[in-house]
Amino acid sequence: LTLSIAIDAMGGDRAPREVVRGAVEAARQHPDLLCLLVGQQGAVREELDAVSWKGSNIEIVPADHVIAMGDSPVEALRKKKGSSVEVATRLVKTGKAVAMVSAGNTGACVAAGTILLGLLPEVRRAGIAVTFHAGDRPVVVMDVGASVSSKPEHLIQYGIMATLYARAVLNVENPRVGLLNIGEEGQKGNPLSKATHSMFLKTQLNFHGNVEGAEIFHSVCDVVVCEGFVGNIVLKVSEGLAERMVVLLKQTLGESFGNGSSDERNLENVLSRLRERVDYSEFGGAPLLGVKGVMIIAHGRSEAKAIANAIGVAKRLAEKDVNKRITEEIRAVSDN
Amino acid sequence: LTLSIAIDAMGGDRAPREVVRGAVEAARQHPDLLCLLVGQQGAVREELDAVSWKGSNIEIVPADHVIAMGDSPVEALRKKKGSSVEVATRLVKTGKAVAMVSAGNTGACVAAGTILLGLLPEVRRAGIAVTFHAGDRPVVVMDVGASVSSKPEHLIQYGIMATLYARAVLNVENPRVGLLNIGEEGQKGNPLSKATHSMFLKTQLNFHGNVEGAEIFHSVCDVVVCEGFVGNIVLKVSEGLAERMVVLLKQTLGESFGNGSSDERNLENVLSRLRERVDYSEFGGAPLLGVKGVMIIAHGRSEAKAIANAIGVAKRLAEKDVNKRITEEIRAVSDN
Repeated sequence: LTLSIAIDAMGGDRAPREVVRGAVEAARQHPDLLCLLVGQQGAVREELDAVSWKGSNIEIVPADHVIAMGDSPVEALRKKKGSSVEVATRLVKTGKAVAMVSAGNTGACVAAGTILLGLLPEVRRAGIAVTFHAGDRPVVVMDVGASVSSKPEHLIQYGIMATLYARAVLNVENPRVGLLNIGEEGQKGNPLSKATHSMFLKTQLNFHGNVEGAEIFHSVCDVVVCEGFVGNIVLKVSEGLAERMVVLLKQTLGESFGNGSSDERNLENVLSRLRERVDYSEFGGAPLLGVKGVMIIAHGRSEAKAIANAIGVAKRLAEKDVNKRITEEIRAVSDN
Repeated sequence: LTLSIAIDAMGGDRAPREVVRGAVEAARQHPDLLCLLVGQQGAVREELDAVSWKGSNIEIVPADHVIAMGDSPVEALRKKKGSSVEVATRLVKTGKAVAMVSAGNTGACVAAGTILLGLLPEVRRAGIAVTFHAGDRPVVVMDVGASVSSKPEHLIQYGIMATLYARAVLNVENPRVGLLNIGEEGQKGNPLSKATHSMFLKTQLNFHGNVEGAEIFHSVCDVVVCEGFVGNIVLKVSEGLAERMVVLLKQTLGESFGNGSSDERNLENVLSRLRERVDYSEFGGAPLLGVKGVMIIAHGRSEAKAIANAIGVAKRLAEKDVNKRITEEIRAVSDN
């Protein structure tokens, strides 16, 4: 009853150290899991030794090359044969792993997922679903940049896939789906959002209607659908502003309370709790939904805890067989 | 040497009270200014009496109708003849005022500006320029929703207009212009951003290249150009997240320090200073650039101080004759 998950040990700003430590954490938490650490054998072994790993449910799968964060995704995948991202993805392709996790180059992951694994039947485009936790309840935003120039039918499929993901991972029975737009009325927005709005009304989804940017944080929906260009900017603006506010807050609090005051450690706690709420990297990464197999893309700056969480999400998606549900639902819509 | 500025006394969540008080504040600060308060005479008079206004540089211009925040802009403008937005705009059109300020329905302002005032020569589309102050230095983002489905040439004109605005109002000699995109390399993004990037490289603007969403807060540019649909979502996401973080912070700080503790007032100060940094409504509203005349759209929830600031910005744009500079620069580019 062992599930194997491939982990790109070389991907991310803090790889291989934090990735290996995250895998160790996950391997300890889930004895029924086999973690396949994909990467440069010596470097990975060294990190395992550094934490005195003695367990049996981690194995190393060698991969000599690494796709760097700045590499051009498709080109790197083509030229750097045998990169850790490619080898990890092929483990899923050949059935040796049920899922793969990477904190590496997002574009390379998307390319590996769509080219090597391929899309699920009837799925027109894969998309990345990120979960925002700043509101009272988590909200899944999809797509945040797997593709651009979407058509209405792509956004409808994102709505279906993100609904099934939210149901499986966030335990929301009947997720409310919103369409990200610049006004609440149906006929607001650009041609894409108008056409998508009309099309959503005809689906069986729990469609809430349009939502504006601020409503991502108001818990009016469980799923927010958008085109990848817009979604990526939403993600980056949120990250940038949250970080910036923590910096500003540190400055103003320092001025008000005096640096080095007895409250300082207290403040640090407050700030790190706040950061956790708005930082999606804490929460287990983002699935590339729509591909054959489970792929979780973790934030580039992921530390061990985030990697362990991402592995946990990968396990859950595989166990609940979300891809089977996606295939059924998408097929049902396509048959209509 | 008196400058007249028309103020939509009925526009905004807190109109007419806060708008009238803002006009009074501005009239006191700028004795060379004549404020024309446009709205329902009785209501405006009452607010002036409430603050015992005795000065001579405020006049009431009657307008019987009000366009509500939820009204459909173009339709309301057509059906509600003699609304305060329309009358204020016509004062600019007929030269009785050099500028108008409104905290009312944004869409109605944009419609009034483009339809009643008309576009400056060679300007293809008007755009709203909002200034973000969360970074170390202010950043002008344009367009945040005056129009959607832009073409590259529209975005180039936004770059020119926002540059001249930043020079006049933010006192930046040679503003650096960034193009909002989902990656730094020139060939990233969607067809619009790719084409716009190439076109920006051929202009005389101080073009920095692409910027990602987070960089709005990193002070790498003074101007960030984007299409109105994306810009509006950036604006709303920023507002929503900033508000939400203040709420979360209040909760976590309350838990850490104990509600009602001696530090509580101190915390309130910190939070309100933080809110000021991220809330653009404090900073004088956003100009609709590209129309014949000066129009400043203030945030719907503007209080007196924000209205007074918006009137100050309107005065500055008129005095510096930014529209003349826009006309010259746009013409120079069109002649090439």
